[in-house]
Amino acid sequence: MSTIKYYWEDLEPGSVRELGSVTVSAEEIKEFAEQFDPQPFHVDEAAGRRSIFGNLCASGWHTCALAMKLTVENFLRDSASMGSPGLENLRWLKPVYPGDTLTLKHTILESRPLRKRLDTGLVRSAWEMANQNGETVLQMEGYGMFRRRHPGTPEA
Amino acid sequence: MSTIKYYWEDLEPGSVRELGSVTVSAEEIKEFAEQFDPQPFHVDEAAGRRSIFGNLCASGWHTCALAMKLTVENFLRDSASMGSPGLENLRWLKPVYPGDTLTLKHTILESRPLRKRLDTGLVRSAWEMANQNGETVLQMEGYGMFRRRHPGTPEA
Repeated sequence: MSTIKYYWEDLEPGSVRELGSVTVSAEEIKEFAEQFDPQPFHVDEAAGRRSIFGNLCASGWHTCALAMKLTVENFLRDSASMGSPGLENLRWLKPVYPGDTLTLKHTILESRPLRKRLDTGLVRSAWEMANQNGETVLQMEGYGMFRRRHPGTPEA
Repeated sequence: MSTIKYYWEDLEPGSVRELGSVTVSAEEIKEFAEQFDPQPFHVDEAAGRRSIFGNLCASGWHTCALAMKLTVENFLRDSASMGSPGLENLRWLKPVYPGDTLTLKHTILESRPLRKRLDTGLVRSAWEMANQNGETVLQMEGYGMFRRRHPGTPEA
């Protein structure tokens, strides 16, 4: 069990976190895609080479899942996270190829307490994931709910 | 190999497709989450029961991946799909629990040819995934690129 370092109050708008790196192999790309996204360019090297991507490339959902892995391991694990209601503006900007090393940056954009759940606050964040060449492969914005260190009091 | 039934021209705005169902088990929920989203309520039944979700529940990314699986198996596999640049407005509306059966509906919202790639058209779609109780668990809107049956001609 980890101890909680980040409650809602600790997540300041404008704060930026480097959430580490992960390298993805051809085997992992194919294993994910065979289960969830068996389009030819995600499961077969030759089909990837013939496609507009020019090589086997990861399912966009695999890229998102790898971003989540880094977010949990390097941030949410130490936080009072209570899940997410959703995302906006998810962009798959470049293909992710076998052997790519992806590095994730997380920026807190906005923060407000929930009115109906006085023990919880909402945070809007941006994620940006880049490959080893400095090219951004994934951008997204989304919401996270976090328990408050000091719950609010009902409004009069 | 499948034959292509749907080129860009065949994807009419307003058309609705039922893309089938999938049932998710506790084992699958934990296996996905251990790899990509090891928050306590996604990997451990007891932690799930103690959480605001009241039970073990699937990572939102797992729910998305299951929606993708149904989309590929029951639609994209028969199409001239060329990948997706991204999504808007992804909403995880209800938790997905072990044993839930999720049914996916896909609606084409808009369609336009790409100006710079005359062999390709862009389609904006909405996905809605509901559980066996008729509750919507996932909503999203996103873009897909499809090869055209009849490529355009350059503008004068």
